Amino acid sequence: MTTLYHLPFSPFCRKIRLVLSEKRIEAALVEEKPWERRRDFLVLNPAGLVPVLRLSEPALTLADSTAIAEYLDETHPEPPLMPQDPVERAEVRRLVGWFDGKFHAEVTANLLYERLYKKMKNSGYPEGPRVRAGMNNIKLHLDYIAWLAERRTWLAGERMSLADLAAAAHLSSLDYMGDVPWDHAEPAKDWYLKIKSRPSFRDLLADRVIGLPPVKHYTELDF
Amino acid sequence: MTTLYHLPFSPFCRKIRLVLSEKRIEAALVEEKPWERRRDFLVLNPAGLVPVLRLSEPALTLADSTAIAEYLDETHPEPPLMPQDPVERAEVRRLVGWFDGKFHAEVTANLLYERLYKKMKNSGYPEGPRVRAGMNNIKLHLDYIAWLAERRTWLAGERMSLADLAAAAHLSSLDYMGDVPWDHAEPAKDWYLKIKSRPSFRDLLADRVIGLPPVKHYTELDF
Repeated sequence: MTTLYHLPFSPFCRKIRLVLSEKRIEAALVEEKPWERRRDFLVLNPAGLVPVLRLSEPALTLADSTAIAEYLDETHPEPPLMPQDPVERAEVRRLVGWFDGKFHAEVTANLLYERLYKKMKNSGYPEGPRVRAGMNNIKLHLDYIAWLAERRTWLAGERMSLADLAAAAHLSSLDYMGDVPWDHAEPAKDWYLKIKSRPSFRDLLADRVIGLPPVKHYTELDF
Repeated sequence: MTTLYHLPFSPFCRKIRLVLSEKRIEAALVEEKPWERRRDFLVLNPAGLVPVLRLSEPALTLADSTAIAEYLDETHPEPPLMPQDPVERAEVRRLVGWFDGKFHAEVTANLLYERLYKKMKNSGYPEGPRVRAGMNNIKLHLDYIAWLAERRTWLAGERMSLADLAAAAHLSSLDYMGDVPWDHAEPAKDWYLKIKSRPSFRDLLADRVIGLPPVKHYTELDF
């Protein structure tokens, strides 16, 4: 059996949930709150971070969302989420790095972690300056997504790839709180609707935080 | 001609310099101060970050150190810096993610950026609490490196890989300032001496900051 230790709104975990679902790999989801630093979990991943994927055949524990995603693509090639050509592969990895690095630091940490995680962890109120920085930054990032989406079928090229899943993982969690100004950049919205309507997305759209319902359009496929 | 836009003590750039040198790819080094946000550089990489690698045949601009490193390994397979087996590849990528993510946030940002970058940028003095946090954190990370080095020939397994180069890139920059308490963890020191004595390291050991000479053991191969 395959088990994913995850946190429901973590974009890194959502990326892996999307990969598993696109590749039709069944996995049990176990919720893990990394800030509790559970001893048995730290044995699985001394970095103390989700996602962690456990496989039984072969018995194996994998950590780090990039390592897990590339492993799953190498061992379950259909459908491919990485191109074959090295130049195209570099472009996918550049964009995964963009979303998991730059977008994460400038947007996700300022909005999702301030507004949603602090509520989940019961650890105080959002800091205004960070939220404002995040709201400004997300517009610039939506512009960049729109720029890519106007020139390419998917963000990294002609086929859907890990770059789209990484980007959608961040945006879907932010969208739960209504923090994505979709009307700011129509081509970005069109790209998101295309990926949001995939069957692999259904599971993410069912996530809920108790006491904090999603905005109305979170689950709508035509908003 | 191949050109690497880099910042001398950036661990992400040092990783690529090591990869280029291990694979005997000649590249011109162009120093780029990303904080100046030079217009022509932002065209090469809208993320505004180093390293950026420009190739002429084929004409190509690559950004993101993970994307560049994996591209170079795919297109110049000798000597291999990634294993063939997917499980071993996942272990290399987990450790690259560890050093470029966790180690970077907990150690490099607190020590190198506070002490060296602020001097290079003439942007104020190091913040004491950050430096103290970095000095505490680096001990835990050296323990982890020692734990790996006691069980494996190289950090990720039997062969030197991108994991060793990523780790050594961070540690070598920190070592310039004498910020690595090597005597805290002998197996980590032994591993570092092994990689430091490689010809690919010579170029890094020649980097200098004007007005700030390195500690004496920085260039010594037996300290």
